[in-house]
Amino acid sequence: MKISRQHCLELDAADPMAHCASRFVLPPGKIYLDGNSLGALPKGTSELIAGVVEQEWGNDLIQSWNTAGWFELPVKLGDRISNLVGAAAGQIVVCDNTSINLYKTLHAALGINADRNLILADRGDFPTDLYMIEGAAQSCGRPVEVRLIDDTANIVDQFDQRCAVAVLSEVNYRTGLRLDMQTVTSAAHKLGILVIWDLCHSVGAMPVALDDAEADFAVGCSYKFLNGGPGAPAFVYVARRHHSTMRQPLQGWWSHQDPFGFAPEYAPTTGIKRMLSGTQPVLSMRAIACGLGTFDGVDLQALREKSGQMCRLFIDLVEQECSQYGVALFGPKEPARRGSHVALSFEHGYSVVQAMIARGVIGDFRAPDLMRFGFAPLYLSFAQLFDAVRIMRESIEQEPWLDSRFNHVGAVT
Amino acid sequence: MKISRQHCLELDAADPMAHCASRFVLPPGKIYLDGNSLGALPKGTSELIAGVVEQEWGNDLIQSWNTAGWFELPVKLGDRISNLVGAAAGQIVVCDNTSINLYKTLHAALGINADRNLILADRGDFPTDLYMIEGAAQSCGRPVEVRLIDDTANIVDQFDQRCAVAVLSEVNYRTGLRLDMQTVTSAAHKLGILVIWDLCHSVGAMPVALDDAEADFAVGCSYKFLNGGPGAPAFVYVARRHHSTMRQPLQGWWSHQDPFGFAPEYAPTTGIKRMLSGTQPVLSMRAIACGLGTFDGVDLQALREKSGQMCRLFIDLVEQECSQYGVALFGPKEPARRGSHVALSFEHGYSVVQAMIARGVIGDFRAPDLMRFGFAPLYLSFAQLFDAVRIMRESIEQEPWLDSRFNHVGAVT
Repeated sequence: MKISRQHCLELDAADPMAHCASRFVLPPGKIYLDGNSLGALPKGTSELIAGVVEQEWGNDLIQSWNTAGWFELPVKLGDRISNLVGAAAGQIVVCDNTSINLYKTLHAALGINADRNLILADRGDFPTDLYMIEGAAQSCGRPVEVRLIDDTANIVDQFDQRCAVAVLSEVNYRTGLRLDMQTVTSAAHKLGILVIWDLCHSVGAMPVALDDAEADFAVGCSYKFLNGGPGAPAFVYVARRHHSTMRQPLQGWWSHQDPFGFAPEYAPTTGIKRMLSGTQPVLSMRAIACGLGTFDGVDLQALREKSGQMCRLFIDLVEQECSQYGVALFGPKEPARRGSHVALSFEHGYSVVQAMIARGVIGDFRAPDLMRFGFAPLYLSFAQLFDAVRIMRESIEQEPWLDSRFNHVGAVT
Repeated sequence: MKISRQHCLELDAADPMAHCASRFVLPPGKIYLDGNSLGALPKGTSELIAGVVEQEWGNDLIQSWNTAGWFELPVKLGDRISNLVGAAAGQIVVCDNTSINLYKTLHAALGINADRNLILADRGDFPTDLYMIEGAAQSCGRPVEVRLIDDTANIVDQFDQRCAVAVLSEVNYRTGLRLDMQTVTSAAHKLGILVIWDLCHSVGAMPVALDDAEADFAVGCSYKFLNGGPGAPAFVYVARRHHSTMRQPLQGWWSHQDPFGFAPEYAPTTGIKRMLSGTQPVLSMRAIACGLGTFDGVDLQALREKSGQMCRLFIDLVEQECSQYGVALFGPKEPARRGSHVALSFEHGYSVVQAMIARGVIGDFRAPDLMRFGFAPLYLSFAQLFDAVRIMRESIEQEPWLDSRFNHVGAVT
């Protein structure tokens, strides 16, 4: 049966999370399907940042490092993120960016599994992860091989006992493929392999269960589904059992056991602060709390359900409206095996995405031919997805490259 | 002859830079002598950041990476800093923090001087530099010795041909000692030694002449004399002649020759962008331009002269008002051999600094006994220095630990 806009409005009326959209300042006239790249602006952020600039920086100046708690931001924000990723407090700090945090965890993992010389990673992962792996392998002090896996859905079949550490995204940035963290981690541990999870595309879109999965390390960014603001610093998780043994070479003063003792000799602090390096960008750090605040009282399982519903609806709508033009799903269809974005392969994807943006539907394009649309359950409605796909079809139909076979628009409406 | 407040007012009346104070929002009732730790708030910053939050993030969202030039911030801001450090364009990027940028330059230098296995550094340098040196030495893939020098004023006598790289601060964070960049670099180069200059305490307080000195590498932060905001990202300079050979292991996607090609293989870009890693914190990055704007039209030589005048006046005032209590200059006295802050050793320094802060004079304390005061020539007046030292004396005289020898306050007034 054809999906109607009325059906989508009914889904919205029944959505227990619909009220959360009022937590955001959303751009009028736009349908924003790129919250997986940059989350929307939480209400109150501008006022909070104005206070940070005018009062904390302008008036209180250097004293704000103590009086406004700037020094404690990495730990305080980390503990707030803990609630969203199933981690007990004291195992996460917010600092630097995902690439740099991945480097730190790689060194820590290679240090713990010092008798192994192989890193496994997903060839289809976000490339910065692969580049940082190469950089860490070359700087770990011993020859380490990096093996890139193609069939990531079956990654556990690739595990072997020579592997020190595997780097995997819980949700792939392109395909949306979701790995089962518990199953994969458990299989890795049976062979003595440590796992670093990249949570960039899962945190804030679904429940993440780091402690339950007995995860070792994780990194993730705060500016996508967490709505922390453009380029906001990333987070890094290390399971408490690794805290006393982990070392990482970006050992700046913020990771020292007495940073204001100013001793010339390095002595690492205990706990997760070992993952810190140096001073953090306060304005960007402070905005993260606003992003995390948009999750107050939100049931992550309900969030996940809405996300799955949205992905399914979008995929079905694209099938209904656009498949006749050759637009095809790229990545798994089943909600349980995917994250909260959908990639569509289409030869003319680049110009369609541009045409959609011109009509107010914001998605993005990933070479060579992928149109990518993300669904932030906190602030999107089902009717918006209907309208977005309708605009996608119109964008296709109005493009000059449209094959003459499809030029009788009336017939396919 | 005793220095009077009237004399200081006359200095202010003759100060060609006095008008620059109006470029800042300065806290009423305070004398801020910690601009060497966190620069004051430039006027217009709050409005600019509100626009970044509300318009660029809130309304334009992901598109702002292109339309608002977020991607280009590291290079654009770097080129603006070039003017303040005597560097031709294209040799500086703004990113990450000083600790992390130092790590990158260390790897690059150790890679260029791959046949040498010694790093020289100043034992009295800001400790994070020493910690990062240790971290880089341990991760460079070969055994490298780190030798800490005590007599940094005569560092060139310690140079030897086994040394790959020396890490030196142009101005020491505690003593204020200034090294002659040109002399030291030239002596180093004669022995094939590369030099990494830490400019944290010189940039924005004096002319820096990187290209003229034929410097190799430099790092520095933007939140001190550059007024870029709390924890704002740092900068890194690499002389153009090293661009094609330098490699650094934090090789994230922002240093890739085609970051949006998403290739799994790393291929470094050409030029200074090789020093980038990953995504930068936009809110904090954007505030830096406001800080750099406070230097518009400022003659750095005149700035340096005012800085020297202020240091000399402050030292003389302390001698006049407080030396009888045992407050003593720590570090060189001659303006040419120092930066723009003054450290004073005093047994009760901690409580004096606290008492001064309570009276509105903001300096800082560095263990074990140093009171440190910085002089930002753009926004401080000579009369403020007079008042600050008067308050220092009153703070000393009103403290309960004051030795009974000095209890007849009238006699020393």
